Amino acid sequence: MKNGLYTVVLLILLSVSSIFGQNGNLITSEAQLQEMKTALKSDNLFHATVNDAIEKVAPYLTSGLDVPVPKDLAGGYTHSQHKLNYSIMQKAGMLYQLTGNDTYAHLIKNTLIKYAQLFPTFDRHPATRSYSPGKFFWQCLNDANWLVYTSQAYSSIYEWLDQDTRDLLNQKLFKPYADFLSVQTPQFFNRLHNHSTWANAAVGMIGLVMHDEDLIEKSLFGLPFKNENTIDNDGGSIIKEGQKKAGFLANIDYAFSPDGYYFEGPYYQRYAMYPYLMYALALDRNKKELDIFNYDHQILLKGIETLVQLSNEKGEFFPLNDAQKGMSYFSRELKLAISIAYEYGDANKNGLLSIVEELQSVPLNYGGFLESNAIAQGKVTPYNKRSLLVTDGNKGDKGAIGILRGNRQEYIMKFTQHGMGHGHFDRLSYLMYNKGDEILQDYGAARYVNVNQKDGGGYLKENKTWAKQTVAHNTLVIGDRTQCHAKVDKAEKATPSLYYFDINNANIQIMSAKDSIAYDGVQQQRTLVLIKDDAFENPILLDLFRANLSSDQKLRMPYNYKGQMMYSTFENKSLNTLPLLGQKDGFQFLWKVGEAPSQGKFNQVNWFNNKVFYTLNMATTKEDSINYVLLGANDPKMNLRNDKAFHWLKKGHKGENLFASVLETHGSYSYTTELAPNTYSSIKNVNVLFHSTDYTAVSFENKSGEKWVFVLCNSDASTSSKHKLKLDNETLKWKGVYQLKKLI
Amino acid sequence: MKNGLYTVVLLILLSVSSIFGQNGNLITSEAQLQEMKTALKSDNLFHATVNDAIEKVAPYLTSGLDVPVPKDLAGGYTHSQHKLNYSIMQKAGMLYQLTGNDTYAHLIKNTLIKYAQLFPTFDRHPATRSYSPGKFFWQCLNDANWLVYTSQAYSSIYEWLDQDTRDLLNQKLFKPYADFLSVQTPQFFNRLHNHSTWANAAVGMIGLVMHDEDLIEKSLFGLPFKNENTIDNDGGSIIKEGQKKAGFLANIDYAFSPDGYYFEGPYYQRYAMYPYLMYALALDRNKKELDIFNYDHQILLKGIETLVQLSNEKGEFFPLNDAQKGMSYFSRELKLAISIAYEYGDANKNGLLSIVEELQSVPLNYGGFLESNAIAQGKVTPYNKRSLLVTDGNKGDKGAIGILRGNRQEYIMKFTQHGMGHGHFDRLSYLMYNKGDEILQDYGAARYVNVNQKDGGGYLKENKTWAKQTVAHNTLVIGDRTQCHAKVDKAEKATPSLYYFDINNANIQIMSAKDSIAYDGVQQQRTLVLIKDDAFENPILLDLFRANLSSDQKLRMPYNYKGQMMYSTFENKSLNTLPLLGQKDGFQFLWKVGEAPSQGKFNQVNWFNNKVFYTLNMATTKEDSINYVLLGANDPKMNLRNDKAFHWLKKGHKGENLFASVLETHGSYSYTTELAPNTYSSIKNVNVLFHSTDYTAVSFENKSGEKWVFVLCNSDASTSSKHKLKLDNETLKWKGVYQLKKLI
Ligand SMILES: [Ca+2]
Ligand SMILES: [Ca+2]
Ligand SMILES: [Ca+2]
Ligand SMILES: [Mg+2]
Ligand SMILES: [Mg+2]
Ligand SMILES: [Mg+2]
Ligand SMILES: [Mg+2]
Repeated sequence: MKNGLYTVVLLILLSVSSIFGQNGNLITSEAQLQEMKTALKSDNLFHATVNDAIEKVAPYLTSGLDVPVPKDLAGGYTHSQHKLNYSIMQKAGMLYQLTGNDTYAHLIKNTLIKYAQLFPTFDRHPATRSYSPGKFFWQCLNDANWLVYTSQAYSSIYEWLDQDTRDLLNQKLFKPYADFLSVQTPQFFNRLHNHSTWANAAVGMIGLVMHDEDLIEKSLFGLPFKNENTIDNDGGSIIKEGQKKAGFLANIDYAFSPDGYYFEGPYYQRYAMYPYLMYALALDRNKKELDIFNYDHQILLKGIETLVQLSNEKGEFFPLNDAQKGMSYFSRELKLAISIAYEYGDANKNGLLSIVEELQSVPLNYGGFLESNAIAQGKVTPYNKRSLLVTDGNKGDKGAIGILRGNRQEYIMKFTQHGMGHGHFDRLSYLMYNKGDEILQDYGAARYVNVNQKDGGGYLKENKTWAKQTVAHNTLVIGDRTQCHAKVDKAEKATPSLYYFDINNANIQIMSAKDSIAYDGVQQQRTLVLIKDDAFENPILLDLFRANLSSDQKLRMPYNYKGQMMYSTFENKSLNTLPLLGQKDGFQFLWKVGEAPSQGKFNQVNWFNNKVFYTLNMATTKEDSINYVLLGANDPKMNLRNDKAFHWLKKGHKGENLFASVLETHGSYSYTTELAPNTYSSIKNVNVLFHSTDYTAVSFENKSGEKWVFVLCNSDASTSSKHKLKLDNETLKWKGVYQLKKLI
Repeated sequence: MKNGLYTVVLLILLSVSSIFGQNGNLITSEAQLQEMKTALKSDNLFHATVNDAIEKVAPYLTSGLDVPVPKDLAGGYTHSQHKLNYSIMQKAGMLYQLTGNDTYAHLIKNTLIKYAQLFPTFDRHPATRSYSPGKFFWQCLNDANWLVYTSQAYSSIYEWLDQDTRDLLNQKLFKPYADFLSVQTPQFFNRLHNHSTWANAAVGMIGLVMHDEDLIEKSLFGLPFKNENTIDNDGGSIIKEGQKKAGFLANIDYAFSPDGYYFEGPYYQRYAMYPYLMYALALDRNKKELDIFNYDHQILLKGIETLVQLSNEKGEFFPLNDAQKGMSYFSRELKLAISIAYEYGDANKNGLLSIVEELQSVPLNYGGFLESNAIAQGKVTPYNKRSLLVTDGNKGDKGAIGILRGNRQEYIMKFTQHGMGHGHFDRLSYLMYNKGDEILQDYGAARYVNVNQKDGGGYLKENKTWAKQTVAHNTLVIGDRTQCHAKVDKAEKATPSLYYFDINNANIQIMSAKDSIAYDGVQQQRTLVLIKDDAFENPILLDLFRANLSSDQKLRMPYNYKGQMMYSTFENKSLNTLPLLGQKDGFQFLWKVGEAPSQGKFNQVNWFNNKVFYTLNMATTKEDSINYVLLGANDPKMNLRNDKAFHWLKKGHKGENLFASVLETHGSYSYTTELAPNTYSSIKNVNVLFHSTDYTAVSFENKSGEKWVFVLCNSDASTSSKHKLKLDNETLKWKGVYQLKKLI
């Protein structure tokens, strides 16, 4: 089927070649431009964007743009100037098209002639730190950026230029530059990697401008393979094992799951989307027949929708894998992506406008114009965040992220592919948000991006030694060791698997996943059930985490909570001179500030965060205990936050073990009235009624005497199978995977 | 002069007695009511307030209000029901006046008759926990609350009632109740204390309703003194040493400084303002001649203005003394206060509307109606927060709070009276905010008000053992001991004194204060200078803290910073097994997580908070060192936040010692662009040029080579004195207290 798709695309390619005229450019048609000009007559967001561009370009209309001989690395003058040049030229191109003022066209022309003169005078950038050294920049990645932007500028003046200048620029600058980025640097062009996506887009976009079908074909399908088997700067091998294809389409196929999830996680997806979408936009304007936005069931549009869904109420992406917290859909990349989703997509169309409205800014393209119009017309609706399963892997068979949403709570369980070098050892962990606040956190990356005093802004060593470790996540730590022995190659070999996901009943949403790779000889399964019932102020979360062990091992369940501890039924003795929790696997960064034995069959931990109370209600045994820990040991440079956690410990026995708990969100606090209703959980016990490899049955009861029994089949996910389970006092019978019964 | 004022008031009192008619009540005139009715014809904030009151009262129009025999303490049924009753009756009274619907009047009448029947049947509330047991409540304070509200309700139906019912209620309920709260409980009525303010207001307000001049006079001037020398629940003595007066006016005189500062601090001022203002409103409506809002140079209106100024950009009161953080001018008490300031005051009138607009709610009174109108007319302007000196003490001679504001920074230095039982040992400490965020914090109170699981919601023992201690504040700790040996009586004996305060030059704002009581044999002075100069992105703070010691003693300057440590020139060795910082004076709660010696004459500590960077630039010697500490030791119940601090240590020598530093606010961070400009301080050194008891001269230089010299006379605050100071290379000459010279 995939091959079929390729063939169709190829046939279409050979038969067409549309051209933008004097009015119109690579990403905008003549007709669209005419429409966009109407916006300039009144106050609106698009007009503000245009005015902003006019202001940014203005100084260079008189001074011109400097085109220095390349010399510096990132941050240096020549690097920054070449970046400035493509940004200014791209804006100038759009302004020429919108205003007809040919001062803009002259600025672009004059600058490009300088580039054409400089280009042939040297081979590559003098710096040699990259696996693919660039031309005007130290690495080809930046050159590809340059060409993606500059292609747009060039297209804007293409018909306006005299034939001689056009020939000069095509022959002395753009064709050689495209060759440079492709055939002359195949280790950069032919990968399945976001670097190559930039390269493919750059070469394809300049190909579209110059009507060079050869470049377009290379951009879409890659180069023939030679011996590119070399290593990139991060130590990744250039060509994937078994890789047979390259180019733009292959990169789409490779990177996205059928649900539009990008294999490295949302933080990197945000970054990677830009070249995919820019080139797609150019292809759509100039190769309509390719129907790129419908490619693979609209995979690119799905990618945008999925990325937006992978954010909390504040628009911040869930910090899975290496991710700096705070990155959000208010970024430049998403501003473009959302304008494209708005123009082409169907899902949540007016909801997207709520993001634009909050940002109060649209991009300088036709989609931005449409958004601006729609907002002026009052079409904004709230964005519909929902429960969903986002599968991973390009066939959708490599695990998933499950999201359950209820009221303003969000529960995100991760059981995806490892995510290569940026992956964390966090199988079956979950994050919890309430009203956009982190309640149970993933630490995120140990990095302050671009903050020089923190190791130059790169990944800190604590990213590997702490942030990636299992204990930094809300999932079971067995034998006080990290999953997969903290080895990426072991983690990449097999993915956790979806067991069951069902959100059809808004009152009982359930997700369950299994893993047998994280720990040798251990079968793990976590089942999260979000239950809505009028008996509770908010939905409650039933968490059943089973571990089948081949030998006795210590079990430690970390809760990386945010907020202030209020009380616990574990009677804590605080340790005044803090011992380390351990020596490795992240434990070396944790002080043990308190520990306490279980008080019996039921225990509670109650904490407070931003005016709301949270209680973990735990089914315990006398053997259980708790550790309170604080992050920050062995950290003389104070690279880590002093975050807290409590760890629920069990003596793990050979065979089946179960952590069963109910997390309740309750109460409120006002700092002005100082009223504090419902500061205690309404749950008074959680009991394990039965547990085996095949079945788990638990009950819980509230203070009004209402009681619930939940039973789950762990080994048969069929919704039609019939089950019977004999308990002490009764026999439960049900059809399908689970049953929740309320007894009053 | 004070005596003169009294006499005038008294003469006026004897000569008048105005009366509200059938339309109009205790706090609203007939004419005002007519105006207010016009608001009910359209959508506006006041109409919304009325609708909200209608909704709240509605259920009781059919059911009536239960008037149970008193039995319970706070939180119990009878307590809550009697509270509900006065709140509903007060609203019903206003609604009767506004709508003319006499169902409201009947509800009040029927309820009051039940009270009149119940009142004579028992003596006092059965609970005996209070120093002044109440009638319907366990303490008189709540009964006074009841009467303040119910007087308003009663006044609303006073003319509507038949003479018999009026006589019944006056004779069987209100007159006896007023006597109960005054002559029968003088230890409650005759204090200089917020309890008595409630009592005075209650008795005076019902006096106004019943036209009982005797009650009004008692309320204003108190009762003759007998032998009330007893002790209240907090262990405070009932009658102040030397107290000669009591009653409402004496309480005003006692509690407010001439600048309108309330001696216990802003958190308690917010609470105390309510009875002052409610009674003042009733007096103004019904005893216009008293001109209460002009009393003592408009002291009550000044109190509101000062209280608003004592808040950060978010409206949260500076958490000085015992104060729960987060209490703000969005509280119910301030909603009333602001409506009164809006009606009567001149200062910042339209600025007050910005607070109302943010709150989107006005109170059910004439001021609320005026606010609602003004907002509908678009009169809102931003509230003008400014630099100011707020003196303490009823003569304004007991120290002060100094506030310097520049851009969005706020620096608050405290050198007030101790503040009795709620005071903290924090002389010469300062707080810093930027954009409303705490940057250098005061811990506030160790308390979760009304959160039962935290010791019933009362003050935690850590409030005394940690929060009040000097180390919990940003001020010098000498010999690792708390100021005044942590003794309230010692601290109450003498107040720090203002040395100099000058905000006339917006580019050099300066405040300086001295203390000689905190530590035996130590003269301390802190001078904070907020300097605006184009060379710096933001104003910078020069801090000169001198201590003259009678013997060698360890000096420790805590910086209770908020945020993430970025780097320090002190090369830290982190301590993995955390020792306690000490055994007492708050040190027992601190772990020492790192320590480092000074690297020479200049050191920096750089941290990051909410997208902004902060650097303390320190003039050091080889003897200096730093401690990094973390809060939370000896705290098994986790009552404390795990806050951080760094402590700058000096070996204090007999004679003069100086901490000289420049705090720079710089740079920014974006989590979406990930750009991080100016993450380093632009200052490259701070030097002490000269220091003696009389003079301090320092210089500092930035990376562009610009240099500043600041010289201060420590012993002569005259602005006309001429000074000459010989340094190594030059002689400085200047007039007045200080000079700042910029050398380029
Ligand atoms: Ca990488
Ligand atoms: Ca890297
Ligand atoms: Ca008290
Ligand atoms: Mg695919
Ligand atoms: Mg992680
Ligand atoms: Mg006074
Ligand atoms: Mg304090």
